[in-house]
Formats: sequence, C-alpha cells, structure tokens
Amino acid sequence: MHRRVKILGSGAFLPSRKVRSEELAKELGLEKDRIEKMSGVIERHYVEEETTSQMGAFAAQEALKNANLKFSDIDCIISTGGTIEQIVPATAPLIKEAMGEVESKIPCFDINSTCLSFITGLDVISYLIEAGRYEKVLVVSSEIASKFLNSKQLESYALFGDGAGAAVIGKSESGDDSKIIASKMETYIKGVHLTEIRGGATGLHARNYSNETKEEFLFDMDGPKVFKLARKYANDFIEQLLTEAGLKKEDIDLLVGHQASGSAMKLVYNKLLGFPSHKVMNILSNHGNVVAASIPLALNEAIKQKKLRRGDKVLFFGAGAGLSFGGIILEY
Amino acid sequence: MHRRVKILGSGAFLPSRKVRSEELAKELGLEKDRIEKMSGVIERHYVEEETTSQMGAFAAQEALKNANLKFSDIDCIISTGGTIEQIVPATAPLIKEAMGEVESKIPCFDINSTCLSFITGLDVISYLIEAGRYEKVLVVSSEIASKFLNSKQLESYALFGDGAGAAVIGKSESGDDSKIIASKMETYIKGVHLTEIRGGATGLHARNYSNETKEEFLFDMDGPKVFKLARKYANDFIEQLLTEAGLKKEDIDLLVGHQASGSAMKLVYNKLLGFPSHKVMNILSNHGNVVAASIPLALNEAIKQKKLRRGDKVLFFGAGAGLSFGGIILEY
Repeated sequence: MHRRVKILGSGAFLPSRKVRSEELAKELGLEKDRIEKMSGVIERHYVEEETTSQMGAFAAQEALKNANLKFSDIDCIISTGGTIEQIVPATAPLIKEAMGEVESKIPCFDINSTCLSFITGLDVISYLIEAGRYEKVLVVSSEIASKFLNSKQLESYALFGDGAGAAVIGKSESGDDSKIIASKMETYIKGVHLTEIRGGATGLHARNYSNETKEEFLFDMDGPKVFKLARKYANDFIEQLLTEAGLKKEDIDLLVGHQASGSAMKLVYNKLLGFPSHKVMNILSNHGNVVAASIPLALNEAIKQKKLRRGDKVLFFGAGAGLSFGGIILEY
Repeated sequence: MHRRVKILGSGAFLPSRKVRSEELAKELGLEKDRIEKMSGVIERHYVEEETTSQMGAFAAQEALKNANLKFSDIDCIISTGGTIEQIVPATAPLIKEAMGEVESKIPCFDINSTCLSFITGLDVISYLIEAGRYEKVLVVSSEIASKFLNSKQLESYALFGDGAGAAVIGKSESGDDSKIIASKMETYIKGVHLTEIRGGATGLHARNYSNETKEEFLFDMDGPKVFKLARKYANDFIEQLLTEAGLKKEDIDLLVGHQASGSAMKLVYNKLLGFPSHKVMNILSNHGNVVAASIPLALNEAIKQKKLRRGDKVLFFGAGAGLSFGGIILEY
C-alpha cells in the first residue's frame, strides 16, 4: 500500500575528531594500509565530548532548516538509533531536551532494530502520517559506536564511526507524487547472535564488568557469517520488494543502503543485487559504518550532491543485528 | 481516527521467586510494614535465572494460546519493554529466538518509551494493522527491574518487580465492534531526568563502573517530582483524549493503567481523574510496578477475572520516563 509521505529535509552531524585508518593501523602495530584495505574506510569520526542526544539534536536542527521548517511545525520525534544513550529514558526525549525545547509537549519515543532502525522508523511512522495522526515527524539516528570498539576484533574495529543523521517526514501535498511505494522487513533468527553488544542492560549488568568480562560490553561481530546469511536472503528480499512495488531493478534511480563495509557493499549491492556503482550511494570511505545513522547520512549526502532529485525512485536497504533486512522503495 | 483492531489474547509470566515486603524491610533494618505502607506492594517477583527474552517468550506463548492461535498465524513481533536485555540487538529478535522459532522470517523490532512502551507499541502498530501491513502482531513487554534497584532509594526499591505481559493484536473482523477509538501521547521534557538509569550505554559505558559511580547504573527516581508533574498534566490529557473519543468519563468501563505506585494510583486515578476504585484495575499489591509489563499484566488479569468483557470500553493510561503520558481508549 502506498503511503503519501515525503522526505521534507535531511540533516547530518559529525563529531569534529577525525580518525584516519593509518592512525588506527599504527596504534595496533599493523601495516599502514591494512585497516583501510580491510574496511574500505579512509577516515571516520569519533566523539570527544559530544553525546548521542546532542549529535541527534544538531542533525535534527539541520534537517528542520533544510526543510524550511521550525520546531513548532513538528508533532513527533522518533529516535531510531542502535546505540542508545541511557537505559532509561528512551533517547528521543533526551534529543528533544538537547534541542532546547523544554516547553514542547510533542511525543518522543524510540524505534530500534539496530543498524536498520532508520528504515524501520520511517516505514512504521509513514502509516501514522498517512492516517493523519502526525503531520511532520523528526526521525533521528544518532550513534556512538566508538565506545563499544574492541581492538581484538579487527573487522568491526576498522569499520565503525560516530555521527548522526536526521530527516523530517511529512504528508505529501495533493499534486505531489512523493510517496512510499513499498516496504518490507524480515528477521532471521539464525543471525541473532552474529552482531551483539551483550553487556550493559539486564542480560549482563554493568556490575559484572571486570577484566575477564570486559569484551562482553563491546561489539562482537562475526562479519563472514553475517555476510553469508545476507547473501542467502538478499536477492529474494529485494525481488519481493520490487514485485510489491511493481518495479524492476532498472527503475531504481539510487540505492541508499546501509554502509555495512566496503566488501559487503561491493559484493551485495553491486555483484549480488546487480546495482551499478553509480547508482549506489557510497559514503563509507569518509564516515565508516555509523550504525543506523549510515542511511540518513547517506541520504543527506545524496541530496546535497544532487544525486537524488524529486521524482527519483530511491531504494533504502540494509541489514541490522537481529539479523534483519529492511527495505523501502520511495519516490523522492 | 478509529483503528479496527482487536486484542485477540493476552498472556503473562512471573518469575517463581516471590519477595514479600516484610523481607525487604527486614533486609534494610526497617519496621516490618514500612515497605508495604510506602509502596502499596505486598509482594513482587524477582528473577533468578530467568532472562528478559525467556520471560517475554513465555508470556507471548500464553497470549497465543489464549487467542487460539499458532505462532505461524503471527506476522510481526514488537518488544515494548523499558529494561532491554542487550544493547545490541533489540529485544524482539531475542524473544523470537527464545520462542524457538528459528526458521521464522517475521520482522522483530523494539518500541521504547520506558513504562509507557506497551501503550506506545499498541498505539503505533494499530495503524499498520488497520492499513493491512500486518494481520496479527505479538506485542511483548518483559522487564527485569530488580537488577537496577538501589537500596539507598527506598521509594523505587520498594516498588519495582519483574515479569512479562503480552498481547496478540489483530484486525477486527467485519461485524466485530472491537476498535481503538482514540489515542494520545505527550512528552514533557521538564521530567526527562526524573526517572533514569543513566549508565550502561553510550552516556556512561560499563567500563566506568566503580564503587563511586555504581549508583549511576541503577534506578534514580524522584517520585514526588514525577507525581507533581503528572498531577499538573493528567487531567487535561485525559479530558482531551475523551473529547477525541467523543466519550465521557462515565462511559469508561475499566481503567487499565500503569501500576506506578499505590499512592499515585489512588491520588491520580481515583481522586484527580475521578475513576472509582471498582473501575480501576489494580494488580500492584502482588506484582509491584513491573515497568512496561504492568499494563499488559493488568490487562491479562482483567480478562482472566472477567472484569473486562467484549464490548467494554477500556482506557489504557500511564506515565513513563521521559516524562511521557500515553493513553488509548479501546472498545474491547
């Protein structure tokens, strides 16, 4: 079912500290180009003092500005991040606070499917906008992955970065063709333990932190197995999504996908799914994998670089811990 | 806007370990009845070996059974808990795994507004069911509050318990009057720091756990201030929700509210909002405040005790960290 929603504006925030792959390689005593070669990342950003909610607020403010809107035009905020700020409350109220909107009563809540959260949030909230429950919604993904990096797991250590991306979503005016044409999500439990940060919440409380357990509180990712599962399911998933949309692969003008890793993007987006490189938005080399913020950051760059124009058909697609796939085909 | 959705079944799970208020009082060197008097809780459950996802799975299985459905009838699982199991992935995939459904591809994601999560989840997913995106959805709130209790904060220490509640939500068949009549959510940022578990995620990583910081990883709740804010906004909130529903307070057959605390329930539900005690579902005394699981647990008891019958108008209402209010008026 189509939902007549429109991306009214997007925004980004990146922490000022840039970390080049050479630095990480040096720190770990590896050959100079090892980290870049394995990850496809030249540089990524790490926070210094910035918090999840502050970064989210900056990205949200920029999205509002780019949409020519004020905060008072917004009637809901959803945080769609994988690395939350606190166990309680949810991150969305903290973002509203960081925006300085102390008097506002608009609802704030989180939708979480790790790296897929932005897609899930956009997909879910589109039904509420279509039905008239909300007019204009801020969808914000803000991520601090750097606090969970494990230098013993080179693959994820090489890959992740911090940052925030946001978008304002609203109803399409009559005469405007912007819409979600189709969307889909699936969760494959065989991959549920392939990407984890096990510690920090009820599963393993912080009081259990010790020299023996410390890796339980960091990213634990089995990239090759994730990739194997992704390869198993990706083609069918995209075919079903395209069928639901009544479209062919060639009809897609731009793939704005999760920036999972250099090889995954090349092998899945180009080789397996058959999207040519010029149709795949790629911001990996200077952002790294920014968890759920990857997709709104890539969207924001696509708009800025005019790779995405009104009327274009964009495919949002990604995999997230779970293991889940999510996809949206949207007429921008 | 009405959404033609129906609660098809509900389920509950409580850990086997019961903890009486006398025990807690003794442990803290207080008068025997002090904990019970201040909280209104006689006994609550604490987990021993049970995990968040296991408890959620048990409650979900019971909800399926009570709805006369099989897992294969379900096409989405939402976890709506405030105390998550892991930082990554979300809790919903872990619940699907705990249900043993390894081959299932149905999507699993989390919706989080702390104590309000069940209401927010039910509210949000009703639009997707109304639109035909999903047919039957498991909404599961599973909470382990006991791992975050701080014996220096008597109010919350006295109050919280563990457990899980779940419901299966589906589309109303034609000729069936079950529906959501109205719903509403607001977030008041003045209350954003009044209920917190600050540590465990990006705000304060577990590596910062120490004897000096340990309370940052536990509940920090300013009950009197939450209550003051709640009292300020509750009446207007409920009046607006009733107006949207075209109903009067007297039309509500049962209030299934968050089991916040004995005094809050009496002062807000009875005195401030004017619902007589026999119309207020109260499971506090033998459950405690079970965070987001309070409402589905109270719903399950209301159905079991036949306090809620088909055709009744039920008001779900609660406050959650944020501080947020959420409410749904539903014809059961």
